[in-house]
Amino acid sequence: ALLGQQETNLSDGSQQRVTQLLKTAEPGGLYGAAGDLSDALPYRDRPGGLRAIAQVHDRYILAEQPDGLCLIEQHIAHERVLYERLNDRWQLVPLTTPVVLEGLNEKQLEQFERLGLAPEEFGPNRWAIRQAPEPLRDRDDLPDALLELSLGGNLDTAQVAIACRTAIRNGTPLDLATLQTLLDDWQRTRNPRTCPHGRPICLTLSESSLARFFRRSWVVGKSHGI
Amino acid sequence: ALLGQQETNLSDGSQQRVTQLLKTAEPGGLYGAAGDLSDALPYRDRPGGLRAIAQVHDRYILAEQPDGLCLIEQHIAHERVLYERLNDRWQLVPLTTPVVLEGLNEKQLEQFERLGLAPEEFGPNRWAIRQAPEPLRDRDDLPDALLELSLGGNLDTAQVAIACRTAIRNGTPLDLATLQTLLDDWQRTRNPRTCPHGRPICLTLSESSLARFFRRSWVVGKSHGI
Repeated sequence: ALLGQQETNLSDGSQQRVTQLLKTAEPGGLYGAAGDLSDALPYRDRPGGLRAIAQVHDRYILAEQPDGLCLIEQHIAHERVLYERLNDRWQLVPLTTPVVLEGLNEKQLEQFERLGLAPEEFGPNRWAIRQAPEPLRDRDDLPDALLELSLGGNLDTAQVAIACRTAIRNGTPLDLATLQTLLDDWQRTRNPRTCPHGRPICLTLSESSLARFFRRSWVVGKSHGI
Repeated sequence: ALLGQQETNLSDGSQQRVTQLLKTAEPGGLYGAAGDLSDALPYRDRPGGLRAIAQVHDRYILAEQPDGLCLIEQHIAHERVLYERLNDRWQLVPLTTPVVLEGLNEKQLEQFERLGLAPEEFGPNRWAIRQAPEPLRDRDDLPDALLELSLGGNLDTAQVAIACRTAIRNGTPLDLATLQTLLDDWQRTRNPRTCPHGRPICLTLSESSLARFFRRSWVVGKSHGI
Protein backbone atom coordinates (compact mmCIF):
# COMPACT_ATOMS: atom_id res chain seq x y z
CA ALA A 1 0.00 0.00 0.00
CA LEU A 2 2.81 2.29 0.86
CA LEU A 3 4.54 1.91 -2.43
CA GLY A 4 1.23 2.01 -4.19
CA GLN A 5 0.61 5.46 -2.87
CA GLN A 6 3.91 6.66 -4.22
CA GLU A 7 3.13 5.59 -7.72
CA THR A 8 0.56 8.30 -8.13
CA ASN A 9 3.28 10.90 -8.24
CA LEU A 10 4.91 9.87 -11.49
CA SER A 11 4.57 12.07 -14.47
CA ASP A 12 6.93 12.06 -17.42
CA GLY A 13 9.42 9.76 -19.06
CA SER A 14 12.50 11.22 -17.48
CA GLN A 15 11.02 10.86 -14.04
CA GLN A 16 10.20 7.31 -14.97
CA ARG A 17 13.82 6.62 -15.81
CA VAL A 18 15.07 8.11 -12.59
CA THR A 19 12.43 6.19 -10.73
CA GLN A 20 13.71 3.03 -12.26
CA LEU A 21 17.16 3.82 -10.96
CA LEU A 22 16.04 4.34 -7.42
CA LYS A 23 13.32 1.75 -7.27
CA THR A 24 15.90 -0.94 -6.91
CA ALA A 25 17.37 0.87 -3.94
CA GLU A 26 14.20 1.04 -1.93
CA PRO A 27 14.00 -1.08 1.18
CA GLY A 28 11.17 -3.53 1.52
CA GLY A 29 12.23 -6.17 -0.96
CA LEU A 30 9.23 -5.58 -3.17
CA TYR A 31 11.45 -5.71 -6.22
CA GLY A 32 12.95 -9.09 -5.58
CA ALA A 33 16.68 -9.67 -5.65
CA ALA A 34 17.32 -6.18 -6.86
CA GLY A 35 15.24 -4.70 -4.08
CA ASP A 36 17.32 -3.84 -1.10
CA LEU A 37 20.41 -1.76 -1.54
CA SER A 38 20.01 -0.48 1.99
CA ASP A 39 20.94 -3.89 3.34
CA ALA A 40 24.42 -2.68 2.68
CA LEU A 41 24.08 0.06 5.30
CA PRO A 42 27.45 0.30 6.94
CA TYR A 43 26.64 1.52 10.42
CA ARG A 44 25.55 -1.89 11.63
CA ASP A 45 29.09 -3.16 11.63
CA ARG A 46 30.89 0.07 12.26
CA PRO A 47 28.85 2.30 14.54
CA GLY A 48 30.15 5.82 14.32
CA GLY A 49 31.85 5.06 11.03
CA LEU A 50 30.13 7.83 9.09
CA ARG A 51 31.90 11.15 8.64
CA ALA A 52 29.84 14.18 7.63
CA ILE A 53 31.57 15.98 4.79
CA ALA A 54 28.90 18.32 3.43
CA GLN A 55 25.29 19.40 3.52
CA VAL A 56 23.49 19.24 0.17
CA HIS A 57 20.60 21.58 -0.63
CA ASP A 58 20.21 22.31 3.10
CA ARG A 59 18.48 18.96 3.20
CA TYR A 60 20.86 16.00 2.97
CA ILE A 61 23.92 15.06 4.95
CA LEU A 62 26.59 13.70 2.70
CA ALA A 63 28.63 11.22 4.70
CA GLU A 64 31.72 9.31 3.79
CA GLN A 65 32.40 5.84 5.10
CA PRO A 66 35.28 3.53 4.26
CA ASP A 67 33.34 1.63 1.57
CA GLY A 68 31.44 4.44 -0.08
CA LEU A 69 29.14 7.29 0.69
CA CYS A 70 25.71 7.91 2.13
CA LEU A 71 23.10 10.56 1.68
CA ILE A 72 20.95 11.02 4.79
CA GLU A 73 17.84 13.18 4.89
CA GLN A 74 18.35 15.43 7.87
CA HIS A 75 14.72 15.85 8.90
CA ILE A 76 13.81 12.19 9.11
CA ALA A 77 17.13 11.17 10.67
CA HIS A 78 16.46 13.67 13.44
CA GLU A 79 12.86 12.50 13.66
CA ARG A 80 14.10 8.94 14.32
CA VAL A 81 16.40 10.21 17.08
CA LEU A 82 13.67 12.27 18.76
CA TYR A 83 11.08 9.52 18.44
CA GLU A 84 13.25 6.98 20.22
CA ARG A 85 14.01 9.50 22.96
CA LEU A 86 10.25 10.00 23.46
CA ASN A 87 9.79 6.25 23.55
CA ASP A 88 12.40 5.96 26.25
CA ARG A 89 11.23 8.90 28.30
CA TRP A 90 7.71 10.24 27.87
CA GLN A 91 7.38 13.20 30.16
CA LEU A 92 4.60 15.69 30.73
CA VAL A 93 5.73 19.05 32.10
CA PRO A 94 3.66 21.88 33.62
CA LEU A 95 3.11 24.94 31.43
CA THR A 96 3.74 28.40 32.86
CA THR A 97 0.82 29.68 30.77
CA PRO A 98 -2.00 27.21 30.17
CA VAL A 99 -3.24 26.72 26.62
CA VAL A 100 -6.95 27.40 26.22
CA LEU A 101 -8.68 25.43 23.46
CA GLU A 102 -12.23 25.97 22.17
CA GLY A 103 -14.88 23.70 20.72
CA LEU A 104 -13.30 20.33 21.54
CA ASN A 105 -15.54 17.36 20.88
CA GLU A 106 -15.98 14.27 22.99
CA LYS A 107 -13.41 12.23 21.09
CA GLN A 108 -10.78 14.93 21.41
CA LEU A 109 -11.39 15.19 25.15
CA GLU A 110 -11.05 11.42 25.48
CA GLN A 111 -7.82 11.49 23.51
CA PHE A 112 -6.38 14.16 25.82
CA GLU A 113 -7.33 12.04 28.84
CA ARG A 114 -5.68 9.03 27.20
CA LEU A 115 -2.43 10.97 26.79
CA GLY A 116 -2.63 12.13 30.41
CA LEU A 117 -3.15 15.76 29.46
CA ALA A 118 -6.30 16.21 31.60
CA PRO A 119 -8.13 19.17 30.02
CA GLU A 120 -9.93 21.35 32.54
CA GLU A 121 -13.22 23.14 31.83
CA PHE A 122 -12.54 26.82 31.44
CA GLY A 123 -15.83 28.57 30.70
CA PRO A 124 -18.43 27.60 28.09
CA ASN A 125 -17.01 25.31 25.40
CA ARG A 126 -13.45 26.10 26.48
CA TRP A 127 -10.79 23.94 28.09
CA ALA A 128 -7.46 24.72 29.66
CA ILE A 129 -4.47 22.42 29.14
CA ARG A 130 -1.96 22.95 31.94
CA GLN A 131 0.76 20.52 30.96
CA ALA A 132 2.32 19.27 27.74
CA PRO A 133 4.82 16.70 26.44
CA GLU A 134 8.28 18.03 27.23
CA PRO A 135 9.52 18.73 23.67
CA LEU A 136 6.51 20.94 22.97
CA ARG A 137 6.81 23.09 26.12
CA ASP A 138 8.45 26.17 24.67
CA ARG A 139 7.16 26.05 21.13
CA ASP A 140 5.20 28.85 19.52
CA ASP A 141 3.04 26.29 17.78
CA LEU A 142 2.04 24.59 21.03
CA PRO A 143 -1.73 25.13 20.52
CA ASP A 144 -1.55 23.62 17.02
CA ALA A 145 0.55 20.75 18.33
CA LEU A 146 -1.97 19.98 21.07
CA LEU A 147 -4.85 20.08 18.60
CA GLU A 148 -2.94 17.67 16.37
CA LEU A 149 -2.50 15.30 19.30
CA SER A 150 -6.23 15.46 20.05
CA LEU A 151 -7.20 14.17 16.62
CA GLY A 152 -6.67 10.47 17.29
CA GLY A 153 -4.23 7.64 17.71
CA ASN A 154 -2.48 6.21 20.71
CA LEU A 155 0.57 7.27 22.68
CA ASP A 156 2.90 5.99 19.98
CA THR A 157 1.10 8.01 17.32
CA ALA A 158 1.47 11.08 19.52
CA GLN A 159 5.19 10.45 19.90
CA VAL A 160 5.58 10.16 16.13
CA ALA A 161 3.71 13.42 15.62
CA ILE A 162 5.80 15.23 18.22
CA ALA A 163 9.07 13.90 16.79
CA CYS A 164 8.04 15.02 13.33
CA ARG A 165 7.01 18.47 14.51
CA THR A 166 10.15 19.12 16.53
CA ALA A 167 12.77 17.59 14.19
CA ILE A 168 15.07 19.90 12.25
CA ARG A 169 13.29 20.94 9.07
CA ASN A 170 14.65 20.34 5.61
CA GLY A 171 15.84 23.66 4.26
CA THR A 172 17.72 24.48 7.47
CA PRO A 173 21.43 25.20 6.95
CA LEU A 174 23.57 23.27 9.44
CA ASP A 175 27.29 23.47 10.12
CA LEU A 176 29.54 20.42 9.88
CA ALA A 177 29.71 19.89 13.65
CA THR A 178 25.91 19.82 13.90
CA LEU A 179 25.68 17.45 10.94
CA GLN A 180 28.18 15.12 12.61
CA THR A 181 26.29 15.18 15.92
CA LEU A 182 23.07 14.36 14.14
CA LEU A 183 24.79 11.51 12.26
CA ASP A 184 26.22 10.12 15.49
CA ASP A 185 22.87 10.29 17.30
CA TRP A 186 21.11 8.67 14.37
CA GLN A 187 23.62 5.83 14.07
CA ARG A 188 23.01 4.99 17.73
CA THR A 189 19.24 4.57 17.31
CA ARG A 190 17.70 1.13 17.56
CA ASN A 191 16.21 1.35 14.07
CA PRO A 192 18.24 3.70 11.89
CA ARG A 193 16.76 2.25 8.74
CA THR A 194 13.51 4.21 8.63
CA CYS A 195 11.83 7.18 10.22
CA PRO A 196 8.84 6.38 12.46
CA HIS A 197 6.55 6.86 9.45
CA GLY A 198 8.44 4.16 7.59
CA ARG A 199 10.42 6.30 5.18
CA PRO A 200 14.01 5.28 4.34
CA ILE A 201 16.54 7.62 5.93
CA CYS A 202 19.73 6.78 4.09
CA LEU A 203 20.73 6.21 0.48
CA THR A 204 24.00 4.28 0.28
CA LEU A 205 26.27 4.23 -2.74
CA SER A 206 29.01 1.70 -2.14
CA GLU A 207 32.44 2.21 -3.61
CA SER A 208 32.11 -1.02 -5.56
CA SER A 209 28.90 0.18 -7.20
CA LEU A 210 30.48 3.53 -8.01
CA ALA A 211 33.55 1.83 -9.42
CA ARG A 212 31.22 -0.13 -11.60
CA PHE A 213 29.21 2.87 -12.70
CA PHE A 214 32.39 4.71 -13.66
CA ARG A 215 33.78 1.51 -15.22
CA ARG A 216 36.99 1.71 -13.30
CA SER A 217 37.81 -1.98 -13.47
CA TRP A 218 37.14 -1.96 -17.17
CA VAL A 219 39.46 0.89 -18.01
CA VAL A 220 42.42 -0.41 -16.09
CA GLY A 221 42.64 -3.58 -18.12
CA LYS A 222 41.22 -2.78 -21.46
CA SER A 223 40.77 0.75 -22.52
CA HIS A 224 44.06 2.13 -23.69
CA GLY A 225 43.99 0.18 -26.88
CA ILE A 226 47.61 0.82 -27.70
CA ALA B 1 31.35 -5.29 -26.08
CA LEU B 2 32.17 -2.58 -23.64
CA LEU B 3 29.41 -3.55 -21.25
CA GLY B 4 30.15 -7.19 -21.82
CA GLN B 5 33.63 -6.71 -20.49
CA GLN B 6 32.32 -5.17 -17.33
CA GLU B 7 30.13 -8.10 -16.50
CA THR B 8 33.13 -10.26 -15.69
CA ASN B 9 33.70 -8.31 -12.53
CA LEU B 10 30.54 -9.30 -10.70
CA SER B 11 30.78 -11.53 -7.72
CA ASP B 12 28.16 -11.76 -4.98
CA GLY B 13 24.50 -11.05 -4.47
CA SER B 14 24.91 -7.69 -2.86
CA GLN B 15 27.08 -6.49 -5.68
CA GLN B 16 24.43 -7.77 -8.03
CA ARG B 17 21.82 -5.62 -6.33
CA VAL B 18 23.95 -2.53 -6.45
CA THR B 19 24.70 -3.27 -10.04
CA GLN B 20 21.02 -3.36 -10.75
CA LEU B 21 20.66 0.08 -9.22
CA LEU B 22 23.35 1.62 -11.32
CA LYS B 23 22.78 -0.28 -14.52
CA THR B 24 19.79 1.87 -15.26
CA ALA B 25 21.92 4.95 -14.92
CA GLU B 26 24.50 4.00 -17.46
CA PRO B 27 24.59 5.95 -20.68
CA GLY B 28 24.27 4.13 -23.93
CA GLY B 29 20.63 3.21 -23.88
CA LEU B 30 21.33 -0.50 -23.74
CA TYR B 31 18.66 -0.91 -21.10
CA GLY B 32 15.83 0.63 -23.03
CA ALA B 33 13.63 3.28 -21.53
CA ALA B 34 15.28 2.94 -18.17
CA GLY B 35 18.72 3.26 -19.65
CA ASP B 36 19.87 6.80 -19.73
CA LEU B 37 19.75 8.79 -16.56
CA SER B 38 22.63 10.87 -17.79
CA ASP B 39 20.37 12.48 -20.36
CA ALA B 40 19.31 14.56 -17.43
CA LEU B 41 22.79 16.06 -17.13
CA PRO B 42 22.23 19.65 -16.19
CA TYR B 43 25.23 21.42 -17.65
CA ARG B 44 23.81 21.41 -21.15
CA ASP B 45 21.22 24.00 -20.26
CA ARG B 46 23.08 25.77 -17.52
CA PRO B 47 26.78 25.82 -18.26
CA GLY B 48 28.67 26.65 -15.10
CA GLY B 49 25.69 25.65 -13.02
CA LEU B 50 27.55 23.11 -10.92
CA ARG B 51 28.96 24.13 -7.56
CA ALA B 52 31.64 21.96 -5.96
CA ILE B 53 30.77 21.33 -2.35
CA ALA B 54 33.06 18.49 -1.33
CA GLN B 55 35.56 15.90 -2.43
CA VAL B 56 34.64 12.30 -1.58
CA HIS B 57 37.32 9.67 -0.98
CA ASP B 58 39.87 11.91 -2.73
CA ARG B 59 38.25 10.66 -5.91
CA TYR B 60 34.85 12.23 -6.62
CA ILE B 61 33.73 15.81 -6.83
CA LEU B 62 30.36 16.23 -5.19
CA ALA B 63 28.59 19.07 -6.96
CA GLU B 64 25.29 20.71 -6.23
CA GLN B 65 23.06 22.05 -8.96
CA PRO B 66 19.61 23.57 -8.66
CA ASP B 67 17.79 20.32 -9.43
CA GLY B 68 19.93 17.82 -7.57
CA LEU B 69 23.47 16.68 -7.18
CA CYS B 70 26.22 15.14 -9.25
CA LEU B 71 29.17 12.94 -8.49
CA ILE B 72 32.03 13.47 -10.94
CA GLU B 73 35.11 11.28 -11.06
CA GLN B 74 38.02 13.68 -10.91
CA HIS B 75 40.52 11.73 -12.98
CA ILE B 76 38.35 11.16 -16.01
CA ALA B 77 36.83 14.65 -15.92
CA HIS B 78 40.34 16.05 -16.08
CA GLU B 79 41.26 13.54 -18.76
CA ARG B 80 38.41 14.86 -20.91
CA VAL B 81 39.62 18.43 -20.43
CA LEU B 82 43.23 17.58 -21.31
CA TYR B 83 42.26 15.43 -24.27
CA GLU B 84 40.25 18.20 -25.90
CA ARG B 85 43.12 20.64 -25.32
CA LEU B 86 45.47 18.22 -27.08
CA ASN B 87 42.96 17.90 -29.92
CA ASP B 88 42.87 21.65 -30.30
CA ARG B 89 46.61 22.20 -30.01
CA TRP B 90 49.00 19.34 -30.61
CA GLN B 91 52.45 20.68 -30.00
CA LEU B 92 55.87 19.07 -29.98
CA VAL B 93 58.50 20.86 -27.92
CA PRO B 94 62.27 20.41 -27.81
CA LEU B 95 63.70 18.59 -24.82
CA THR B 96 66.65 20.06 -22.94
CA THR B 97 67.93 16.52 -22.36
CA PRO B 98 67.13 14.01 -25.08
CA VAL B 99 65.62 10.69 -24.07
CA VAL B 100 67.65 7.68 -25.20
CA LEU B 101 65.65 4.52 -25.86
CA GLU B 102 67.06 1.06 -26.50
CA GLY B 103 65.94 -1.91 -28.53
CA LEU B 104 63.15 -0.24 -30.53
CA ASN B 105 61.69 -2.39 -33.28
CA GLU B 106 60.65 -1.35 -36.76
CA LYS B 107 57.00 -0.75 -35.84
CA GLN B 108 57.92 1.43 -32.91
CA LEU B 109 60.25 3.50 -35.08
CA GLU B 110 57.48 3.93 -37.66
CA GLN B 111 55.06 4.96 -34.96
CA PHE B 112 57.49 7.63 -33.70
CA GLU B 113 57.85 8.94 -37.25
CA ARG B 114 54.06 9.00 -37.60
CA LEU B 115 53.76 11.16 -34.48
CA GLY B 116 56.50 13.47 -35.74
CA LEU B 117 58.94 12.49 -33.02
CA ALA B 118 61.79 11.63 -35.43
CA PRO B 119 64.03 9.26 -33.44
CA GLU B 120 67.74 9.66 -34.23
CA GLU B 121 70.23 6.81 -34.24
CA PHE B 122 72.42 7.10 -31.17
CA GLY B 123 74.86 4.21 -31.17
CA PRO B 124 74.10 0.53 -31.69
CA ASN B 125 70.43 -0.30 -31.08
CA ARG B 126 69.86 3.07 -29.38
CA TRP B 127 67.83 6.07 -30.44
CA ALA B 128 67.60 9.61 -29.14
CA ILE B 129 64.29 11.43 -28.97
CA ARG B 130 64.88 15.15 -28.93
CA GLN B 131 61.32 16.47 -28.69
CA ALA B 132 58.09 15.42 -27.02
CA PRO B 133 54.40 16.35 -26.84
CA GLU B 134 54.16 19.45 -24.68
CA PRO B 135 52.32 17.96 -21.64
CA LEU B 136 55.02 15.30 -21.24
CA ARG B 137 57.98 17.68 -21.36
CA ASP B 138 58.78 17.96 -17.67
CA ARG B 139 57.56 14.61 -16.43
CA ASP B 140 59.75 12.14 -14.62
CA ASP B 141 58.02 9.31 -16.47
CA LEU B 142 58.84 10.76 -19.89
CA PRO B 143 60.76 7.63 -21.10
CA ASP B 144 57.83 5.39 -20.11
CA ALA B 145 55.38 7.77 -21.75
CA LEU B 146 57.36 7.76 -25.00
CA LEU B 147 57.54 3.97 -24.98
CA GLU B 148 53.78 3.85 -24.46
CA LEU B 149 53.29 6.12 -27.47
CA SER B 150 55.51 3.88 -29.58
CA LEU B 151 53.33 0.83 -29.05
CA GLY B 152 50.73 1.64 -31.68
CA GLY B 153 47.69 3.63 -32.62
CA ASN B 154 47.28 6.93 -34.40
CA LEU B 155 47.59 10.54 -33.27
CA ASP B 156 44.24 10.41 -31.51
CA THR B 157 45.25 7.32 -29.57
CA ALA B 158 48.42 9.11 -28.53
CA GLN B 159 46.42 12.11 -27.32
CA VAL B 160 44.16 9.84 -25.26
CA ALA B 161 47.17 8.16 -23.69
CA ILE B 162 48.81 11.48 -22.87
CA ALA B 163 45.61 12.89 -21.38
CA CYS B 164 45.21 9.80 -19.22
CA ARG B 165 48.80 9.89 -18.04
CA THR B 166 48.80 13.58 -17.18
CA ALA B 167 45.30 13.89 -15.65
CA ILE B 168 44.98 14.29 -11.88
CA ARG B 169 45.02 10.84 -10.32
CA ASN B 170 42.24 9.50 -8.17
CA GLY B 171 43.43 9.51 -4.59
CA THR B 172 44.77 13.06 -4.88
CA PRO B 173 43.32 15.43 -2.28
CA LEU B 174 42.13 18.67 -3.89
CA ASP B 175 40.88 21.86 -2.29
CA LEU B 176 37.48 23.35 -3.12
CA ALA B 177 38.86 26.01 -5.46
CA THR B 178 40.71 23.38 -7.50
CA LEU B 179 37.61 21.18 -7.60
CA GLN B 180 35.55 24.12 -8.88
CA THR B 181 38.11 24.98 -11.57
CA LEU B 182 38.12 21.39 -12.73
CA LEU B 183 34.30 21.35 -12.79
CA ASP B 184 34.21 24.58 -14.79
CA ASP B 185 36.77 23.35 -17.32
CA TRP B 186 34.95 20.06 -17.67
CA GLN B 187 31.56 21.67 -18.22
CA ARG B 188 33.02 23.68 -21.09
CA THR B 189 34.26 20.62 -23.00
CA ARG B 190 32.57 19.59 -26.22
CA ASN B 191 31.70 16.15 -24.90
CA PRO B 192 31.43 16.20 -21.11
CA ARG B 193 29.49 12.96 -21.09
CA THR B 194 32.38 10.52 -21.31
CA CYS B 195 36.13 10.40 -21.01
CA PRO B 196 38.04 9.71 -24.23
CA HIS B 197 37.98 5.99 -23.42
CA GLY B 198 34.18 6.08 -23.27
CA ARG B 199 33.66 5.93 -19.52
CA PRO B 200 30.82 8.00 -18.00
CA ILE B 201 32.15 10.97 -16.03
CA CYS B 202 29.15 12.05 -14.02
CA LEU B 203 26.48 10.34 -11.95
CA THR B 204 23.45 12.58 -11.51
CA LEU B 205 20.85 12.22 -8.78
CA SER B 206 18.01 14.60 -9.47
CA GLU B 207 16.08 16.15 -6.64
CA SER B 208 12.88 14.56 -7.92
CA SER B 209 14.44 11.11 -7.81
CA LEU B 210 15.80 11.73 -4.33
CA ALA B 211 12.41 13.01 -3.18
CA ARG B 212 10.97 9.80 -4.47
CA PHE B 213 13.59 7.60 -2.83
CA PHE B 214 13.00 9.31 0.50
CA ARG B 215 9.22 9.25 -0.10
CA ARG B 216 8.84 12.92 0.55
CA SER B 217 5.65 13.36 -1.43
CA TRP B 218 4.17 10.34 0.25
CA VAL B 219 4.74 11.51 3.79
CA VAL B 220 3.34 14.96 3.30
CA GLY B 221 -0.06 13.70 2.40
CA LYS B 222 -0.48 10.41 4.07
CA SER B 223 1.82 9.41 6.80
CA HIS B 224 0.77 11.04 10.00
CA GLY B 225 -2.23 8.83 10.42
CA ILE B 226 -3.87 10.94 13.06
